[in-house]
Amino acid sequence: MSLGENMIVTLFGESHGPAVGALIEGMPANVEFDLEQLITDMVSRRPGSGLASKRKETDDVEILSGVNNGRTTGMPILLLIRNQDVRSKDYSFLPYQPRPGHVDHPINIKTEGAADLRGGGSFSARLTAGLVAASSISRNIIPDDWKIEATVGALGGLEGDEGIALAEQARKAGDSLGSRVDLVITGLPIGLGEPWFDGLEPALARALMAIPAARAVEFGRGVNAGEMRGSQHNDKWGEGMKLDEGADGALGGMASGAPIHVRITFKPPSGISLPQETFNQISGMMEELAIKGRHDPVIAPRARPVVEAVARLVIADLGIQGGYIDG
Amino acid sequence: MSLGENMIVTLFGESHGPAVGALIEGMPANVEFDLEQLITDMVSRRPGSGLASKRKETDDVEILSGVNNGRTTGMPILLLIRNQDVRSKDYSFLPYQPRPGHVDHPINIKTEGAADLRGGGSFSARLTAGLVAASSISRNIIPDDWKIEATVGALGGLEGDEGIALAEQARKAGDSLGSRVDLVITGLPIGLGEPWFDGLEPALARALMAIPAARAVEFGRGVNAGEMRGSQHNDKWGEGMKLDEGADGALGGMASGAPIHVRITFKPPSGISLPQETFNQISGMMEELAIKGRHDPVIAPRARPVVEAVARLVIADLGIQGGYIDG
Amino acid sequence: MSLGENMIVTLFGESHGPAVGALIEGMPANVEFDLEQLITDMVSRRPGSGLASKRKETDDVEILSGVNNGRTTGMPILLLIRNQDVRSKDYSFLPYQPRPGHVDHPINIKTEGAADLRGGGSFSARLTAGLVAASSISRNIIPDDWKIEATVGALGGLEGDEGIALAEQARKAGDSLGSRVDLVITGLPIGLGEPWFDGLEPALARALMAIPAARAVEFGRGVNAGEMRGSQHNDKWGEGMKLDEGADGALGGMASGAPIHVRITFKPPSGISLPQETFNQISGMMEELAIKGRHDPVIAPRARPVVEAVARLVIADLGIQGGYIDG
Amino acid sequence: MSLGENMIVTLFGESHGPAVGALIEGMPANVEFDLEQLITDMVSRRPGSGLASKRKETDDVEILSGVNNGRTTGMPILLLIRNQDVRSKDYSFLPYQPRPGHVDHPINIKTEGAADLRGGGSFSARLTAGLVAASSISRNIIPDDWKIEATVGALGGLEGDEGIALAEQARKAGDSLGSRVDLVITGLPIGLGEPWFDGLEPALARALMAIPAARAVEFGRGVNAGEMRGSQHNDKWGEGMKLDEGADGALGGMASGAPIHVRITFKPPSGISLPQETFNQISGMMEELAIKGRHDPVIAPRARPVVEAVARLVIADLGIQGGYIDG
Repeated sequence: MSLGENMIVTLFGESHGPAVGALIEGMPANVEFDLEQLITDMVSRRPGSGLASKRKETDDVEILSGVNNGRTTGMPILLLIRNQDVRSKDYSFLPYQPRPGHVDHPINIKTEGAADLRGGGSFSARLTAGLVAASSISRNIIPDDWKIEATVGALGGLEGDEGIALAEQARKAGDSLGSRVDLVITGLPIGLGEPWFDGLEPALARALMAIPAARAVEFGRGVNAGEMRGSQHNDKWGEGMKLDEGADGALGGMASGAPIHVRITFKPPSGISLPQETFNQISGMMEELAIKGRHDPVIAPRARPVVEAVARLVIADLGIQGGYIDG
Repeated sequence: MSLGENMIVTLFGESHGPAVGALIEGMPANVEFDLEQLITDMVSRRPGSGLASKRKETDDVEILSGVNNGRTTGMPILLLIRNQDVRSKDYSFLPYQPRPGHVDHPINIKTEGAADLRGGGSFSARLTAGLVAASSISRNIIPDDWKIEATVGALGGLEGDEGIALAEQARKAGDSLGSRVDLVITGLPIGLGEPWFDGLEPALARALMAIPAARAVEFGRGVNAGEMRGSQHNDKWGEGMKLDEGADGALGGMASGAPIHVRITFKPPSGISLPQETFNQISGMMEELAIKGRHDPVIAPRARPVVEAVARLVIADLGIQGGYIDG
Repeated sequence: MSLGENMIVTLFGESHGPAVGALIEGMPANVEFDLEQLITDMVSRRPGSGLASKRKETDDVEILSGVNNGRTTGMPILLLIRNQDVRSKDYSFLPYQPRPGHVDHPINIKTEGAADLRGGGSFSARLTAGLVAASSISRNIIPDDWKIEATVGALGGLEGDEGIALAEQARKAGDSLGSRVDLVITGLPIGLGEPWFDGLEPALARALMAIPAARAVEFGRGVNAGEMRGSQHNDKWGEGMKLDEGADGALGGMASGAPIHVRITFKPPSGISLPQETFNQISGMMEELAIKGRHDPVIAPRARPVVEAVARLVIADLGIQGGYIDG
Repeated sequence: MSLGENMIVTLFGESHGPAVGALIEGMPANVEFDLEQLITDMVSRRPGSGLASKRKETDDVEILSGVNNGRTTGMPILLLIRNQDVRSKDYSFLPYQPRPGHVDHPINIKTEGAADLRGGGSFSARLTAGLVAASSISRNIIPDDWKIEATVGALGGLEGDEGIALAEQARKAGDSLGSRVDLVITGLPIGLGEPWFDGLEPALARALMAIPAARAVEFGRGVNAGEMRGSQHNDKWGEGMKLDEGADGALGGMASGAPIHVRITFKPPSGISLPQETFNQISGMMEELAIKGRHDPVIAPRARPVVEAVARLVIADLGIQGGYIDG
């Protein structure tokens, strides 16, 4: 459950256990620690507002090591977030009638019954709180002109704000909706990245596909590149070796100088209120399952800050690797 | 340039240097080494046939360590493939007039002029020869009922064979065409995989996005999931906890029991014969560049065995990790 | 600050910060968690008794993830130990007059002043609490007939109990004494281990030399082997391929079937009450420094359970690597 | 079989297979490649002279990737050394009557008969050729004032040259002799190193204990520290924070500014001409085994350049980690 080679973030915790959090190794020493920013970042992914589930978590982050006198010490940083609003009785149907589209059954098989399945256990999106906290602390090692911004791209196939009504409608129907987050990274120095498996695209694809419910990652012109001609797709180097705004920002694992455009598609959340017929291992029959509890009707709004967090961690890691950031 | 955590494959070599190849660490001992299979696999990705470039390589693989008496010894396996048909004078325009859509310029900046740029150097698709060879040797550790098969999905947006004429036409025009490879993995035990960043989807996405020219990776319903409702997308567990054929084969990083469908989109090859206007750093002007040499008009047919090879290495690695394969 | 390749233990915390602890990744699922054993193990290294410093710590371990219903879940395990008896004003002389024989000055230079130096910060032996806790949890994955036992070998050069009076005398004089811990590992299957840098001797040497104040590690006949003849040193394989009790238990990184004997020499603790003349960076002069606070007069008695803990973690890791323990 | 975290050297090959060598990942770009130095370094560890075995190897190193125009390219460097003087019939007694003091039997058990046992296979000191070659290439990234020098410390317990006659005498008797190599590292910047398991002492101890036949590693006053008092052992910081020449050069994993003294004890070589009685698995009886072939009577003279090579690789790796060397 680790991300990064130079600055390594390891997640821990379970959705309905005592806590979640992250351990950061390889954070440089003497980096200013910005508590205000951390609070802002944690609030941005907090449930309980808008198109998000009603679970209430204050998400107070305890910094238990690696920060002293308002600066990082160069030693491992432990970030701990206690779980508070846990309603475990909502999950009494597990493991016998696992939810459609959820990981309940594969986890149970994998761990031979040992895993804590409530709320998805360690596979829960709740663990993204640790990612967001770790990413927040890494902000101050990233040069100011490297910009990493994610926006809600589409809800249910409708671009931008168009889809909000559709999502609201899905919620009211006890259903959920697919969505997309768009990520743009600008200002990276040409050549940042690595060859092959540690390149920008592979590293970002890996990290982004680990966000719960991600189903596709596209770079540049993405799936549309499959229908283009080379003469049309090739980005010409212009005066002074500049590329157009629309050019591919990542070439062979490295930054080309143009903005990097990434699109991440999320499936509709599996947790819906509509009753679903699914197999019950006790009765040995298909039976209706009505899942109580709190559901997000659409993922993009809550995944947006997580996409940004994950991208920032990947870029910080590659920046240290390439010597652009003092490690 | 390494793939895998338990069975680690590290690529080396340059397109126009003396050799390419791979070093495999963590291959179990006593695995039968199948030379016939290795030759078959190497032929499958060899250039010089059909819609592929005219570069001739016999791709004889020297096995220089780790195999004895027709079996693996449990020690590192070195696979060496000498380069033979190298026409380096084709690249005399580098680094001053880097090719549109190629990594020439970012590599040059990254390595401050040290890298061997000819033919893409270490970033060349030539290095996939090492991947295919390593993957071939890993075949015998994978259980027979785990099937990993890639097919050419589309050429220029036309499904299956429909696109061949289009690709031929692009070639004649000195141009190139985008394409897609479809990967299907069946028979994996439920629960194979890991949580978060080492899960099936993140690990496959990382490895597949490292194949030169890959621009998008989709799992299950891919980008279409973004337009679906949960009630429609959720895969119900049926009698005996079986899933439909069309269900998502990977859930939260683990195998669900259904076939895993992955689609990989490749951009049109950047190397085209059509003259392109691009910046020349010596003259300080935009100038036409006509690239001689050998070009593939479309990537999917040659990437197909590489996709399979990469997927096999990822699955073998996760299989060892989970104890499904003796490591 | 990580140990292990398969089961990875990462330490965190500072001696005078809020907490210390360990994060364990790769612990198999379904391992029984034995709280009684954990308490016993934590007590064994606790300060405040016998030849140990007077610092009082109850060393209560909070298990914040990875354990559920009395068993490991297969997910990362976070062990947190709060610091309680912290007297930071004892360290007001830092960083200007660093203590002789301590790491104060190198840490300060390394982190450009950012590290928390009080009590050695993250370099403190206090962090061995996390090692002992992690090791305690790993006990139940190690087969019963693998025995790992450490004893106090010598104090001030006097074997066994002979040296206790000498240590007591050193303490009364405000001084400290060197010591040795002897480690014996029996019952490992022949061949457990790996070639070269991950072998038994390299892995144990690395882990043991990381214990604060360790200055030498010897295997088998250790430094005495340098004076022997091959005909005398060579261990003959006897009837049924058995070795003598006194034979080398580790050969080329692997278990040979004989007991593995390791000796670890510890320097006398650097913290002594006797005033020492050392450089003061503010006055620019040599000045007497009298270090208040709590000092162990000799390390072996407190290092003994840590040696055992570290060895157990290394053996568990190699056991998983070799397939002797289900990972 | 990998050493290093930032610059990673992986060994491969078997003593009696086609080749041995090393793959280097993470070597910075633009480092001058010095062929003369490489030849000098390879000659220094070559067998066939003085107190070394009679095996003749020219040890020509083929550089098959990662070097172009006399400089490193920043990509993986493959170093290949073909085996030439292989007399495999000397090993026909294996695996049935494994040699006393050798790894033959544990390897055979570990790999269930798959390993190539001839000459120790992948466990052979022959593989140090790859270490010496890799280390030679890393020379040019290490600052000039960092000095790493190993000398023959003792043969059979006699310091310096005193022991040569003793070793010669052991050889004539068909026997062998224990020995010691002394390593001194000077000029490292204060603070170079890392906390805990990646510190100078753990990293050096691990790497040095991986050299075949190493039995003990001592730092500073080594085993003698076990008999000292703190008031005697503590190194005072003198004027301008300087330490005495005899002070401990490594404190808590970091360079203190004083020379680092390390002593490595090697057992007498297990390969001796004197007949030895040992178990024969075919006859089921103890039988005399007379090992033909080429034997070194003492290890230190041949291990000396290997100790230096290994230490250089460790220091280069830690230098990159700490930002003292551009990675």
